[in-house]
Amino acid sequence: MSVVYLTRHVHFSAAHRLHSAELDEEQNRNIYGLCNNPLGHGHNYELEITIRGEPDPVTGMVMDLKEVKAIVEKEILVHVDHQHLNHVALLQGKVPTAENIVMVFWYALKDKIPHGELYEMVLYETPRHSVRYRGE
Amino acid sequence: MSVVYLTRHVHFSAAHRLHSAELDEEQNRNIYGLCNNPLGHGHNYELEITIRGEPDPVTGMVMDLKEVKAIVEKEILVHVDHQHLNHVALLQGKVPTAENIVMVFWYALKDKIPHGELYEMVLYETPRHSVRYRGE
Amino acid sequence: MSVVYLTRHVHFSAAHRLHSAELDEEQNRNIYGLCNNPLGHGHNYELEITIRGEPDPVTGMVMDLKEVKAIVEKEILVHVDHQHLNHVALLQGKVPTAENIVMVFWYALKDKIPHGELYEMVLYETPRHSVRYRGE
Amino acid sequence: MSVVYLTRHVHFSAAHRLHSAELDEEQNRNIYGLCNNPLGHGHNYELEITIRGEPDPVTGMVMDLKEVKAIVEKEILVHVDHQHLNHVALLQGKVPTAENIVMVFWYALKDKIPHGELYEMVLYETPRHSVRYRGE
Amino acid sequence: MSVVYLTRHVHFSAAHRLHSAELDEEQNRNIYGLCNNPLGHGHNYELEITIRGEPDPVTGMVMDLKEVKAIVEKEILVHVDHQHLNHVALLQGKVPTAENIVMVFWYALKDKIPHGELYEMVLYETPRHSVRYRGE
Amino acid sequence: MSVVYLTRHVHFSAAHRLHSAELDEEQNRNIYGLCNNPLGHGHNYELEITIRGEPDPVTGMVMDLKEVKAIVEKEILVHVDHQHLNHVALLQGKVPTAENIVMVFWYALKDKIPHGELYEMVLYETPRHSVRYRGE
Repeated sequence: MSVVYLTRHVHFSAAHRLHSAELDEEQNRNIYGLCNNPLGHGHNYELEITIRGEPDPVTGMVMDLKEVKAIVEKEILVHVDHQHLNHVALLQGKVPTAENIVMVFWYALKDKIPHGELYEMVLYETPRHSVRYRGE
Repeated sequence: MSVVYLTRHVHFSAAHRLHSAELDEEQNRNIYGLCNNPLGHGHNYELEITIRGEPDPVTGMVMDLKEVKAIVEKEILVHVDHQHLNHVALLQGKVPTAENIVMVFWYALKDKIPHGELYEMVLYETPRHSVRYRGE
Repeated sequence: MSVVYLTRHVHFSAAHRLHSAELDEEQNRNIYGLCNNPLGHGHNYELEITIRGEPDPVTGMVMDLKEVKAIVEKEILVHVDHQHLNHVALLQGKVPTAENIVMVFWYALKDKIPHGELYEMVLYETPRHSVRYRGE
Repeated sequence: MSVVYLTRHVHFSAAHRLHSAELDEEQNRNIYGLCNNPLGHGHNYELEITIRGEPDPVTGMVMDLKEVKAIVEKEILVHVDHQHLNHVALLQGKVPTAENIVMVFWYALKDKIPHGELYEMVLYETPRHSVRYRGE
Repeated sequence: MSVVYLTRHVHFSAAHRLHSAELDEEQNRNIYGLCNNPLGHGHNYELEITIRGEPDPVTGMVMDLKEVKAIVEKEILVHVDHQHLNHVALLQGKVPTAENIVMVFWYALKDKIPHGELYEMVLYETPRHSVRYRGE
Repeated sequence: MSVVYLTRHVHFSAAHRLHSAELDEEQNRNIYGLCNNPLGHGHNYELEITIRGEPDPVTGMVMDLKEVKAIVEKEILVHVDHQHLNHVALLQGKVPTAENIVMVFWYALKDKIPHGELYEMVLYETPRHSVRYRGE
């Protein structure tokens, strides 16, 4: 028995604004700075989805990569690509920080993986800022 | 006499929406597709600014890179970083396509270069889509 | 009147073998080395297609990037992606060196660009080896 | 006592075809799609080898990087670089999926590390598709 | 309760020479090779700092990235950027191998993180050579 | 007749200090800032060498890439890799700015290219700072 980690790297482009309904205007400006700009700004997000599982002894694959891509497309990308993240249903009621986005994506995908299990998601907001979630 | 091309690579994050005031709603949707989404989306833009000039015989530099950075910061980045490009003064009245953005940046910078001359600007909207302008 | 260069970056994976019908076995081995291995080897090719043109005054675009992608897909990628380059019709009778591939791609695309003109193609065989063609 | 993870990043170019002897032609085509193309295709593989160990108190190194490189060259790269992976001895009898390749590489290297122990291998088949193996 | 890993990617440029006071000249040359060159050489180091913690329920952030950046600047970068690593106080008495540098950086930062805890540091000396430390 | 541009991408690591013998200490500090630090600092330099020529009608190559690599190794890399650039013969009497380095490399290579001609050299001192020289 052997366990391999399979990672699919995808991307999407979206706008967002960091603003918490639980903070007043001044607090929002102080905490989020330029990210609190009312009209929003945006990013090319890079997302890495890792599935942990045993390769099938016949096919030699943990999962068909085309199938991974189709699930990620359906459960995540179609909802956020070229959208404003403060206005998408998936993120309703959340401040769209990288931390909140990666956790929301995790739970959108977690029960849709037919072979193996979701192990880790890494989200790059920029090449200099990334977050990882492992379901802990 | 020798001519060297000096390139400074910078970046900014911004939102935009592709929508032309000269087209009706349906035309806008047909032409720009998801990029016409009313709430906008966004990108991590990468910008390469190339200055053509003769290195100073004493310092060995076309221009001090710190000085290039300061000029680009003042004339371009401060106006667009973490902003919504459809609402910044620099791009007023322009559809914020990569083509229009790079031309606007060119004219914002062109007369501010103290040594050598602006030769080329390259703007990456995503790692898969870029534009170049040379003042032609 | 203004001229902008629009670049679309695409990729494909393919096998090839460097072997010239005009050389004998020993010459082929001496010239191409490991690249002459009879069973072939392969690469993830990166291809950059640059179109030179005037942005449309209404849309602000040289060409719709989706349209560029569709043309490149139809005229080039569908013929070579996940193929063995010594056996594709597009490259028949050519040693599939990066130099020959990029020239063949150029002539496959040249007359299919509806706005502006093909200006440059860059082909990366590996991140350490690339070729450029400009129709000269 | 301190434990550091040392990673060497290498690369090789190879052809492969995904085809399982335990499946019939139609099943192979359905499961592997274009990757089942009889003539094969290819990739620039990137391989990251991580060794876990205590830095030597005199030299400050877990292992000499030149020595790591020489071992990886001898045990792995010389067998696969510029080869067709369906025809190399190291992978005999295996469908050359990324999952199977990374496991075969692991066992080829595992007992050859003189200081510390092999901790993780990451194999990129393309920049969008990678696998990790940790000997589990 | 949820745990997210937040990573900030920074960089610095520095010179170093690998030379151990506990080895004689010949041993130093044999072990370190070109890296033992008396005048030193240098690198563009890339450093990834990962903090593990629970996102604040109001702000949605493990830590403000600007605050992470300011701490890393003060505790690490200001001491090593554009310096010769064999002559900086932080590394006094250490051979500046990547292994030793990453451990020294770890202990310089470890107690300065106000929210969450330092989880991992990755240091790239070149794109082909990196080390990881997790406080083990 | 067709002209293709062939580019080989190589790298080296070196230390340098920006200091002009024609300026006094204070002028050097003011102009070069941290780069004037007496002990020097360093970089991972990336160098792109482009040769312009007609592919050989039999081999399909402008030049054998292994031959390009050997010439660049002999004429440039062996002199600067893992060295302090203020102390290498090739750069004697020059302030080792990127501008001066790229011009020196040009003239070291220019007459050694057996097929085609040297067209362009690009030198990256960091991923954010590069220079180009074309023999003008």
